[in-house]
Order: sequence, then C-alpha cells, then structure tokens
Amino acid sequence: MRKLFRNANIFTPADPGRPLAGRAQGAIQVFERGAMRVRNGRIEKIGPEADVLDGLSPADVAMETDCGGACLIPGFVDPHTHMCFAERREAEFSLRLAGTPYLEILKQGGGILSSVRATRAASEADLYETTRRHVLSALRLGTTTVEIKSGYGLDTETELKMLRVIARVGRETPSDVVPTFLGAHAVPEAFRDNPDAFADLVIEEMLPAVSAQGIARFCDVFCEEGVFSVAQTRRILAAALKSGLGIKLHADEVHDLGGAGLAAELKAISADHLLAAGDAHIAAMAAAGVVANLLPGTAYSLRKPFARARKMIESGLPVALATDCNPGSSYTESMPFIFGLAVMNMEMTPSEALTAATLNAAYAVGMAGKTGSLDVGKQADFLLLDGESPAILAYHAGVSPVSAVYKHGERII
Amino acid sequence: MRKLFRNANIFTPADPGRPLAGRAQGAIQVFERGAMRVRNGRIEKIGPEADVLDGLSPADVAMETDCGGACLIPGFVDPHTHMCFAERREAEFSLRLAGTPYLEILKQGGGILSSVRATRAASEADLYETTRRHVLSALRLGTTTVEIKSGYGLDTETELKMLRVIARVGRETPSDVVPTFLGAHAVPEAFRDNPDAFADLVIEEMLPAVSAQGIARFCDVFCEEGVFSVAQTRRILAAALKSGLGIKLHADEVHDLGGAGLAAELKAISADHLLAAGDAHIAAMAAAGVVANLLPGTAYSLRKPFARARKMIESGLPVALATDCNPGSSYTESMPFIFGLAVMNMEMTPSEALTAATLNAAYAVGMAGKTGSLDVGKQADFLLLDGESPAILAYHAGVSPVSAVYKHGERII
Ligand SMILES: [Zn+2]
Ligand SMILES: [Zn+2]
Repeated sequence: MRKLFRNANIFTPADPGRPLAGRAQGAIQVFERGAMRVRNGRIEKIGPEADVLDGLSPADVAMETDCGGACLIPGFVDPHTHMCFAERREAEFSLRLAGTPYLEILKQGGGILSSVRATRAASEADLYETTRRHVLSALRLGTTTVEIKSGYGLDTETELKMLRVIARVGRETPSDVVPTFLGAHAVPEAFRDNPDAFADLVIEEMLPAVSAQGIARFCDVFCEEGVFSVAQTRRILAAALKSGLGIKLHADEVHDLGGAGLAAELKAISADHLLAAGDAHIAAMAAAGVVANLLPGTAYSLRKPFARARKMIESGLPVALATDCNPGSSYTESMPFIFGLAVMNMEMTPSEALTAATLNAAYAVGMAGKTGSLDVGKQADFLLLDGESPAILAYHAGVSPVSAVYKHGERII
Repeated sequence: MRKLFRNANIFTPADPGRPLAGRAQGAIQVFERGAMRVRNGRIEKIGPEADVLDGLSPADVAMETDCGGACLIPGFVDPHTHMCFAERREAEFSLRLAGTPYLEILKQGGGILSSVRATRAASEADLYETTRRHVLSALRLGTTTVEIKSGYGLDTETELKMLRVIARVGRETPSDVVPTFLGAHAVPEAFRDNPDAFADLVIEEMLPAVSAQGIARFCDVFCEEGVFSVAQTRRILAAALKSGLGIKLHADEVHDLGGAGLAAELKAISADHLLAAGDAHIAAMAAAGVVANLLPGTAYSLRKPFARARKMIESGLPVALATDCNPGSSYTESMPFIFGLAVMNMEMTPSEALTAATLNAAYAVGMAGKTGSLDVGKQADFLLLDGESPAILAYHAGVSPVSAVYKHGERII
C-alpha cells in the first residue's frame, strides 16, 4: 500500500550520481503542483500531480495527504556536527565576546579541553540524554540525517563511549545518524609537548578499537596550526583508510595550512571549514571531487569573514552546508539558520543553498544513496515549509518555517 | 493572594525613571538565587530569595513556582514593527537577492506599494488574522509588548482599518500592543508628483480622524531621500504633536538626511534605523534624550553595514532594539534573533542588548511605567530561558532559548 502526498510545491535537487557543482548546484527541480507516492518508506514516484496520479486506483492508496500548496523539500542533512557533548560553554562565550582569541582560550586549557574534561566525567546515560536532546531539536528544525563526531574524549575509553552514545541516538531517534571518529580533534594536555606521540596513540590504539567495533563510518582530523600538522593528519588519515573508514578533515579554518590540498591528494569525501583556503587548493579539491563543507555558523559566532562560497561554486567545487554544532565555536543545531547565513552572508542563491543543505550534504557523509534528494528509490525524508519556495528559509529571518517533518514517509513533527 | 517565583537566576535592568545610556546601559542587576513575588499581576517584591521569602507566610502564597535555577529576564518589548500586513513578499526577496536595489524596487511600484495594494484589498477579518498570527509567534519568542504601525493604507480609510485591527489584536491577545499611526510611510502612486499634497492629506484628513478615534499613541514618518523630506516630516510631526500624539521617526536609514537631527530638535521619543546617522546628529540626539531604536534585522536582510551601536552607546545615547518586522526589508518577529545580531554584528554586550530589548525599548514606546524591567509595581511580564544568563540569546545561535513566557504573572507559553 502507498502513501500519496499531493498539492505540494516541490523543490528538490535531482541526483545525477555525484555531488552537484558549478551551475548544476543551483539547478533545482520544481513541480509547482506536485505530488509524491511513497511505498515502504521510499519514493515510488514524484512529479507533476497529474503524472503521479496517473494509473493510480484509490484502492492502492492507504493514506492521502493534501499539502495545501505548501513548499515541500528534502529533509536537511547536517554533515558536520559535534552534538555529542556533556556541557555548554556559555561563560566562555561571553569571555570570547569580550576579546579573548580562540587559540588563546585553547592554550589556556579552556575551550575544547574543558569539553574533554566534562565529557570524560559524564556518565554514558547523561551524555546520551544531552545528545538525544540536540538531535531531537535539530529534527524539529528539519534535520532528518545528521553526522555526529566523537572527539571530546581524546582517550580510547571516552572516544568509544561517545561513539556508543552516537550509535544509540541513531537507533533510538527517528534521525539517520552518521558516526565519525575524531580522536584527533585536539592534542590532550598530557601530550602537549609531544603531539606526534598522540598521533601514534590515535593510529595504534584508538583506530584499531574503533574499527574492530564497527562504530564509525568516517575518520576526521582537525588539521590546523597548533593542533595537527599536515604531516600528522596525512599519517592518521592514511591509517584510517587502511582500516576501512572513509576520511574527511577540518581544513584551513584559521590558516591556509594546506589541509584543503591534502584533502584533494587523499581524495577525502569532504574538507570542512575552508575559511582560509587559497585558490590553488580550491582548484585541487574541485579536480579531486572533494565536497567543500562550509560552516557559516562558525564564522558568524567567531565574527570571522565567511568562507568564499561564490568563488568555490564558480570554481566547480560542490558546496555543502553544516551547522558545526558544538559548545565552543558554533552552538546551533538549526539548518534554517545556517541556510539564512549562506544566502545573506555568503551570497549563495536559495537554490544553491538548498542543494548544499540536502544532496551535497548527503554526499559529504556518504548518504546520498538513501537520502538528500527526492529521487525515486530514496527514503521519503522531507519537510513542509510555511512559504512559497526554499527562499522562505532566508526570508523569514531567524524563524524556522519548517512546519512538518517526515522520515521514511511518516510524519514525526 | 500572591504568586511566588523562586530559585531563578534573575537578570534585569533597574529603571531609574529614564532610558539607560552609556555605561548604565550595560549595568544589569543580577540575583543569582533570586525570587519574585507577584500580586494582582504586578511585581510586589524582587531580590535574593532569602529577602523575598522573609516575612512571607505560606498562607499568603496562592502559587509557588520553582524555576529550577533557570535564567529569568523581563519580557521583550519590540518597539518598532509593521506586523499588520496582508501578504508576504517572498518573490520580491529573491529578486532583491539577485541584485535589484531597494529604492529601485520602490520606484517600480513594487516594494512597499505592493503591500499597500494588498492591505487595501484585504478584508478587516483577514488582516486581523494575519496580524494576530505574527503577534502570537512573537509572543512564543518572548515579546510581551509590541508596537505595531499602520502605514500600508496611505488613505484614511485603510489607515483607520489597520489601526482598528491593531487595537483588536491588543484586546484579543495577551500582548500589550502599542499602536502607531504611520500614514506618511510612503508616497502613494496618485501623489507621486506632488508629495507635499500627500503631506497635506496626512495632516488635514488622516491625523484628525486618527486623533478623533483615539486609536494611536504615536505618529511616525518615514524621513528619507525619495520618501518624505525633513521639511515635510517636520510639518507632519508638528501637527501630530498638536493633536496629542507622541512622535517618532524613521531616520537616516539610507542617507544622512538630517532625520536624527530633526528627532533631537522635536524631542521625539525615538529615532529609528540610523544606519547612516552622522556623529553630530548622534550627539544632538543624546543631548535631547531621544532613544536610538536600532533595527539590525533590516541591515542583515538588506546586506547593509549595521548601525554604529558602540559609537552611540559611547556617546551616551540610549540604544533600543527592535525587529522592524515587515514583509519587505526585515521579515522577522524574533527578538532572540535580533539580540544575537546586536551582540555578534553590532558588538553590543549581552547586558547592553538586554537593556536595549527591554527597558530602553519600553521607553521608546512610552511603556516603561508598566513594563520593560522587573521593578516593584510593574507588570510581571517575564521569560524563563534555557541557559545561565542572557548571553544564551546570542550563544545558542538561531535557536530561541525562551522556554516560558509570563504576562501579568500568568504563564501564557
Ligand atoms: Zn568541526
Ligand atoms: Zn520601520
């Protein structure tokens, strides 16, 4: 039996089997009076209402929903988050506003290391509860698939605890959750004078344990001045590839260190941040098919210039968008907010931003086969918006227009 | 009988009987384990919990609420909105993003004049329904007092229709609604070649009708190049003063035309926008005690430089914040979003932004006697936030932390 959704104003990227780049990123499919048939949670047919209704007998339809002309888009995929953390850092935020630079806070053992202490100390049950709350809030804001990284453990035990929590959130909420191992998120205090030894620990102890338990799909490294060098990042990601994980990296957030170039060299699935990435590295990423995962919430929250989305799109680099949800540099789980920043501050068109927040984001976390667009055969993960088009996500500033959320064809919000 | 709210982390400006300026704008009162007693909807006592409980017998307390350590702040006052409109302008937003300048859209009869056509055509019942929906959405986001302007009529009949709708929303929702007559919002097409004649119509026909019906508290004028000149604005506001209305104006949004100077000269209650206001006019406003009502949602949505809040605060000018909620240049009713922009993009401190969004905003609409701070005798209009301090309003970017809304001591959200 089928579910039928009709009288919807459908906007979706069409999946050609690879991330959409250049002009294609903004070439959205529109069915002005569209409909969608869903069978067993998957899209069976989509298009103009007349086509979708054609040959369908009422007896074949278990449930029919009149969308009342609402705008219907794919569920958001948030391809870069650190939502699994134990405590907010609201006081540090005020400190930072008052002028203390981020790398200075890091050096003082504040910043990320305070999240490490809190996450190590937290019980698995408490960590689960907090993470679940973030995922459910994101779901209300339209995120039906979310990547969540470990990386507040920095020891094998806590990294595994985080990955168990992330897996459980995937099982016990309606969201699809993509787990990423980020043991190399920061250099812990005990290794401050010997980061190479910590890279060894990641490679020799953490990666094998993570891989043996099969609880991560990707391995990520924070490649940045004062964190992990390009050489250390290359070693860790090479080991991750050998142990069967996909790879991605935090690249060129603060300095043009060469992380984007490394992503191209290793054909990582995505390189993320890229605020400081230079032209040559952008071209190399485009040639290698790496998705540029942009995190404008971080630029907003750190009051930094935004990544050069227009330059990237014009260079043929597929651009994705993510919240970077974390307690330090971007405490938001709202993809509508990120969409607004992308349009208003990075001058992406609403169509480019839609592709970035859905299909390209799905490619950035290896989920495009299942979700990220409304192509036949994919999961019926979609949203109804209180507006005429995806532009409402930027137009209605600071207010989520997501009025209904469907996962596998079931209404969950 | 009393209501008691205890175990709250209270942050509020203290009202000295005038808007807070300079250093005082950021000098927030904090009661870390605070409590508040409410009697007949008004604040009877507020302070450290021990003081508030002192001498209070359980028999005197009809209802006790343990706030669980939540942050408690005054309800937001949104002192500048155009929430009474018939239709969104989502398509025009996309046009504008594609590069068409605002004044060009205005000249082409799009922009505000399309809202005028829609508002003239709308039934009073429909206009009421749309306006009510905006006010209720704002209420969920913490706005317990809201100013709403007319100005999409530009003829006597429709201006009066709007003011009736605004009054009815004030009666039929929990919000306090402050009605402002803005007949001089734009020059209607019929008067394009003779704006002076339209100013005459505002003065000779609209103002007397509005004044006779007693349905506006303030008169506002959009003083801008291509709209109303400083001379026309002066004429209209002088007439408004004579007919007993308070006065305020849209000043120096696009050009430093002298609107801020005029506000100082006429001792208007507020001058609003001020993106282009020069130093001399800022000093004149400070000397005259005019509130600077800043609308960062408009700068965000029009991709313009933000008003110079720091310069204003350092010049001793009291700063208020408002959404400017309107279908053209700032479609948001979210004060948490505006608070975030003020902190992140105008470098106001969270404490300054709190005063701006509550007490100074109340002064900007003549409501400080009743609300805008948690002083004894004022209405118990307050919010609980999911956070430690008002900084959460900026820290949790794009997500409202407002978890409960109280009006006159009654929980309404
Ligand atoms: Zn990150
Ligand atoms: Zn306005």
